[in-house]
Amino acid sequence: MERPVGIFDSGIGGLTVLRELRDSISGEQYLYFGDTGRVPYGNKGKLTVTRYSVEIANYLLMNHDIKALVVACNTASSLAVEGLQKLYRIPVFEVVSPAVAKAVAETKNGRIGVIGTSSTIRSNTYKRMIRSQNKHIKVFQKACPLFVPLVEEGWVDHPVTEMVVLEYLSFLKKNRVDTLILGCTHYPFIRSRVEAYLGEGVTIIDSAMNVVIEVEKYLRSHDLVRIGKKKDIRYLVTDDPDKFREHGERLLGERPIDVVQVTL
Amino acid sequence: MERPVGIFDSGIGGLTVLRELRDSISGEQYLYFGDTGRVPYGNKGKLTVTRYSVEIANYLLMNHDIKALVVACNTASSLAVEGLQKLYRIPVFEVVSPAVAKAVAETKNGRIGVIGTSSTIRSNTYKRMIRSQNKHIKVFQKACPLFVPLVEEGWVDHPVTEMVVLEYLSFLKKNRVDTLILGCTHYPFIRSRVEAYLGEGVTIIDSAMNVVIEVEKYLRSHDLVRIGKKKDIRYLVTDDPDKFREHGERLLGERPIDVVQVTL
Repeated sequence: MERPVGIFDSGIGGLTVLRELRDSISGEQYLYFGDTGRVPYGNKGKLTVTRYSVEIANYLLMNHDIKALVVACNTASSLAVEGLQKLYRIPVFEVVSPAVAKAVAETKNGRIGVIGTSSTIRSNTYKRMIRSQNKHIKVFQKACPLFVPLVEEGWVDHPVTEMVVLEYLSFLKKNRVDTLILGCTHYPFIRSRVEAYLGEGVTIIDSAMNVVIEVEKYLRSHDLVRIGKKKDIRYLVTDDPDKFREHGERLLGERPIDVVQVTL
Repeated sequence: MERPVGIFDSGIGGLTVLRELRDSISGEQYLYFGDTGRVPYGNKGKLTVTRYSVEIANYLLMNHDIKALVVACNTASSLAVEGLQKLYRIPVFEVVSPAVAKAVAETKNGRIGVIGTSSTIRSNTYKRMIRSQNKHIKVFQKACPLFVPLVEEGWVDHPVTEMVVLEYLSFLKKNRVDTLILGCTHYPFIRSRVEAYLGEGVTIIDSAMNVVIEVEKYLRSHDLVRIGKKKDIRYLVTDDPDKFREHGERLLGERPIDVVQVTL
């Protein structure tokens, strides 16, 4: 039996990671799990997010025998991955450490900004990981809880979003960060707004881009690449599949996509 | 054994209903259930919201023998109450029909506005109920998905909220509604913003206020009022109790409140 790569997120945000995987490692079988019945994770506690992540990982392993798991959600990566990596035999990839490595390599003035959900920022995972690589780097964190609902409302180019960007990011501008980590898989959708506000001197790190390199490296070095086959992507969700299908087809630019609702 | 009144909401919004109950029927034992581990409900489908509501009602009945259930959430009231009322022997109160009765009685020009979450508005429950009482009334509905995150961010008096109010409500102003139902238990927190935009000629109906009258009437007519005792309120939640406690104490203006986390 062929073994798929499992990817999970609280909802649609992780599709930015799936899109990169699909384009970079195109012959794989992917199984995307969106926990849309309990979305979002970004305002929930560590124990809750860990429990949800374990339920999903167990489901994907026991029912679909995935060969690797990609946690395509910054909140779950920040709060739950350490636990998952202790539990499972398969490799568990997360979006935090590749983004941290990239940011530490890119910064010139030693001032890195991190934006994310309330729970991601409160966990201090980014700050801790950056400081463990280089304790001289200054880290400026800011929770941006309105970005996800603004993206989901489709107000990417709306003046309200411009005002919210200004409100959240002025703290980072004032502190002269030269590198900013988009620490939430929804944020790439408003990347151009963020760039426009911070200006050209600031390097933006998209966590989706960087995890894909790690996954590819692992599959190659362990001889797990699926060769000579067409891509095969399926989607599992915990709420109404129709709404997910609609969003997903728009974000991925392909249709139809195969979405099934499951109960954990 | 004394039997409490059960109240549930997806999170903290239903505390506006609990506050009214506490002040109007002050000697009761109340058990408030906030499904904070799966909040919000307002963007989820009918089957999902119904399943969650049934799980909570079963829990409150089997473990705490509640004598009545108040669904203090407009989304659950719109999507799930019909099912709950078929299932249970105890009375199930919801926030939609008392608000509808009040609005139909108040309107002079026969033009009623309804604002709520995406799922509430998509269900057309308000529209259907208003039209079943008076088919000549025109109903103008508008989903306002950003109001809940704005309230939870605490941006009640922020210029961003003013802009969002204008964006959402201009449709209702243009259609000259003279009565507006706040079809979500979070919205009373931004009531003054809504009033400021719509002006004095529009009557605002707060669903929390009107369900309390129904509950009181029922308890009196069935001789179920708890007399001569001090109020006794406990809180059950499905995510971190500390965060709920902090919000709850602020909203209710009392402390400490007794919050326990449970797993359904």
